[in-house]
Amino acid sequence: MTQNIYDDKDFFKKYSALDRQVRGLDGAPEWNSIKKLLPNLKGKRVLDLGCGFGWFCRFAIEQGAKNAVGIDISKNMISTAKTFSSNPAIIYKIEDLEKLQLSNDSYDFAYSSLTLHYIKNFQQLIAAIYNSLTSESMFVFTMEHPIYTAPSSQKFIIGKDGKRIYPLNSYQIEDERTSNWLVNGVVKHHRKMDTIINTLIDTGFKILHIEEWKPTDEQLKKNPEWSEELDRPLFLLVSAQKEE
Amino acid sequence: MTQNIYDDKDFFKKYSALDRQVRGLDGAPEWNSIKKLLPNLKGKRVLDLGCGFGWFCRFAIEQGAKNAVGIDISKNMISTAKTFSSNPAIIYKIEDLEKLQLSNDSYDFAYSSLTLHYIKNFQQLIAAIYNSLTSESMFVFTMEHPIYTAPSSQKFIIGKDGKRIYPLNSYQIEDERTSNWLVNGVVKHHRKMDTIINTLIDTGFKILHIEEWKPTDEQLKKNPEWSEELDRPLFLLVSAQKEE
Repeated sequence: MTQNIYDDKDFFKKYSALDRQVRGLDGAPEWNSIKKLLPNLKGKRVLDLGCGFGWFCRFAIEQGAKNAVGIDISKNMISTAKTFSSNPAIIYKIEDLEKLQLSNDSYDFAYSSLTLHYIKNFQQLIAAIYNSLTSESMFVFTMEHPIYTAPSSQKFIIGKDGKRIYPLNSYQIEDERTSNWLVNGVVKHHRKMDTIINTLIDTGFKILHIEEWKPTDEQLKKNPEWSEELDRPLFLLVSAQKEE
Repeated sequence: MTQNIYDDKDFFKKYSALDRQVRGLDGAPEWNSIKKLLPNLKGKRVLDLGCGFGWFCRFAIEQGAKNAVGIDISKNMISTAKTFSSNPAIIYKIEDLEKLQLSNDSYDFAYSSLTLHYIKNFQQLIAAIYNSLTSESMFVFTMEHPIYTAPSSQKFIIGKDGKRIYPLNSYQIEDERTSNWLVNGVVKHHRKMDTIINTLIDTGFKILHIEEWKPTDEQLKKNPEWSEELDRPLFLLVSAQKEE
């Protein structure tokens, strides 16, 4: 079972205060980039894995999706989604994505935001998503970038020449990583870029686009401290399509 | 024009002494991984960009390729290729890949080993390769991995915890990088993973497989010093196919 850190009281309190929760999708710096990868959602049956507060399910319905199913392991998340993002066309479910059972050909679009780096059995989940989609449907997801998840410490250091350095190591070693984000002991699964891409391809997805997100010039002007995002990518965005 | 470091006398002397030149393809640690990506070459017209000493052209003919064209910017390289890897079915040409002109639909397989990181106008070269290939032909290439080419210094350092660190920075900044490899002042072009993959896709290639090469357990046993390859990927291997 995936570690359910979102039902940790302390973690959830801090998480709920993040801009991306308080302000919704527009509070996420990568949202504008994600939007460009999305298909027309009109009439689509949408699946959102790791739906959190339900922001994306609500957005999908606003964009004309027929319905949406939001799944999350966390009771806190689903409970908040039901309060903040309630809609008759949305169903929220508490489920462990490691053991996800989905009906075949039952969705026309799958989405997942910053969730897949918590998953141990990546291949099994990708296969479940693939099977749940109708032919030619798209799957758009974001996750922590492998460069970000790789090292034993995720904290920048200053090199001899005074330049900021991201202390990369153990990139090739795919395994659990325990990091301290909001609280101590958050367990993530480091997976290489080739594993992510090849798993999608070998399952039957065609890669349409990948993006190693970086802030725009405008975002950097407003948030000069984000310049560290230029030194190493934090988020990976992928759009893929189920082949016939 | 691409920097032609291979016609630098000092560089060429040191380069010629490398295992991958002395022993040919089997002297390259990533060769076994490349082989798995290759299609059946029988009867194919093969294009090799950055052909060096002609090892791959020779291999292609040995595998039953109809003919091969090897292109390299370096007179030293082509001259050596003509001596070491001469064959009536191989044509060697000195050309700058930045300005490469190829006939449409004239090759059934394209190959390039550790050359594309020298190229400034990547998109233009990928388009030239695409146009030169017949429909459904494959393009297999290797290049220095973006993680490797990114930082201002490519030398490992030791962190406070005694662990080896690859000092990653400026990953998101795509530009020239000057490194010291064999001689000082070797100019390469750092390009992000997303740029590499998306350029291929947007040109019309389908991504079949990518590999962030790492040594096998057996290679590590024979060459314990290669363990640093586990900390950051050095080579990127890609296989792609021209879509109809």
